[in-house]
Amino acid sequence: MGRLTARRRILRLGPDRAVQRVDALAVEEPLELRVGGQALSVTMRTPGHDVELAHGFLLTEGVIGSAADVATARYCQGTDPDGRQTYNVLDVALADGVAAPGPGVARNFTTTSSCGVCGKGALESVRLRTRHCPAGDAVVLDPAVLRKLPGALRSAQRVFDSTGGLHAAGLYESDGTAVAVREDVGRHNAVDKVLGAALLAGRVPASATVLMVSGRASFELVQKAAMAGVPTLAAVSAPSSLAAELAEDEGITLIGFLRGDSMNVYTRPDRLKLD
Amino acid sequence: MGRLTARRRILRLGPDRAVQRVDALAVEEPLELRVGGQALSVTMRTPGHDVELAHGFLLTEGVIGSAADVATARYCQGTDPDGRQTYNVLDVALADGVAAPGPGVARNFTTTSSCGVCGKGALESVRLRTRHCPAGDAVVLDPAVLRKLPGALRSAQRVFDSTGGLHAAGLYESDGTAVAVREDVGRHNAVDKVLGAALLAGRVPASATVLMVSGRASFELVQKAAMAGVPTLAAVSAPSSLAAELAEDEGITLIGFLRGDSMNVYTRPDRLKLD
Repeated sequence: MGRLTARRRILRLGPDRAVQRVDALAVEEPLELRVGGQALSVTMRTPGHDVELAHGFLLTEGVIGSAADVATARYCQGTDPDGRQTYNVLDVALADGVAAPGPGVARNFTTTSSCGVCGKGALESVRLRTRHCPAGDAVVLDPAVLRKLPGALRSAQRVFDSTGGLHAAGLYESDGTAVAVREDVGRHNAVDKVLGAALLAGRVPASATVLMVSGRASFELVQKAAMAGVPTLAAVSAPSSLAAELAEDEGITLIGFLRGDSMNVYTRPDRLKLD
Repeated sequence: MGRLTARRRILRLGPDRAVQRVDALAVEEPLELRVGGQALSVTMRTPGHDVELAHGFLLTEGVIGSAADVATARYCQGTDPDGRQTYNVLDVALADGVAAPGPGVARNFTTTSSCGVCGKGALESVRLRTRHCPAGDAVVLDPAVLRKLPGALRSAQRVFDSTGGLHAAGLYESDGTAVAVREDVGRHNAVDKVLGAALLAGRVPASATVLMVSGRASFELVQKAAMAGVPTLAAVSAPSSLAAELAEDEGITLIGFLRGDSMNVYTRPDRLKLD
């Protein structure tokens, strides 16, 4: 379901000549997520693993805390101009007793404001409270295992190899065993798919794991880790200031610039096994 | 207003030893955008150029079409725990006769659905109609000028040099002259800041320009270009399938993998001056 690459005729300009050739592009399509028939969000994503994506999104937005909170997840009927099912609308029914998401979910569109103290309001409106607090997680991280994760993540990136156009995220046990690895045109989606897969596999709270991402570490990625109970977030590239502050608050070990034999540990270095 | 980097004590692990040092991180802070006192969106951004960001966001979301559509833009009062103004809430008053944004703006939270044909609905809900259609733009693009843009953009990235944590976007005239260059922790924000700056400078519709971005080209970036009347979008990295499809529809020249002496032209190659 869902092609991952699309072929397209392009013009390739080199230093001295232009040639026509066929190029592979990473497929990007919108997914509309509904809860109980009500549209909740539209995300631009790589098709596939949509049920995981929905679970991960609802988990990291605080709507659900376990796989049992979802009763069913199914695609709506919908066809493209050629009459093919598009698989671009997914409807989730929550289990009895699980509250439907309020208007604060998908906070890019905040309809109410917690003003009064305005400056505080902006951050409060995006900050969520986790049900799976990772602060007390006593996992011991071996730097030798961490150093292998960028290579492990990269070697699992099949679509990237042909298109250069995808982000990747992987959830690993502390010995380096992969729980789930996913690629997506959106970095948040790649993380949601991985955490949704973990939720469906009964691996949330994701204690003693490392979430590895191919790009940078932002506030939102740290928050997603916290919502799933992940004690360690490692990024190939740089974290932001707010990512480090949130990691400190949530008791998450935040690692950046994990490349070659080196890494920067921004918070909770106590989990690292150092000689 | 707004520090661009924050210093933090970190643990740096090399191949054989760990050392404490101080590292510079790219500052990320939330900005709540209000229109007429009503909260519209919260975005995680690099502080600074917020008025441009607001103009660019409202332009590329279809709320405004010109600088005259905004009457005033000012920060709300708001202080952090130390009593300092936070500059994290910006309130925009629209000019008389300009319609307030409907619930469809910031479409991550779509409250109504255009269902019936579900699959079509998802894409329609994110597709906007531009007031500044770039399809008829007869600009001639010199590949020699295009090849210089990645270096020009990179050399203007001051904060990236110290943090490695920012995306960049630049709007250039067809002879390579910069109209505006901005960095941000968010790639959409960098583009919104550049297009907002162009709007405020009277350079929208941005005919005969090239929008250059440091990363990949997604559907949303092509849409932002179209909304501002930009005829050419060039990216250092890969475009997605939907980015190429939208560029085709809007008559935008889409260039990817613009690196060294080479580039891929995905759509509208007729604008390129080839020998």
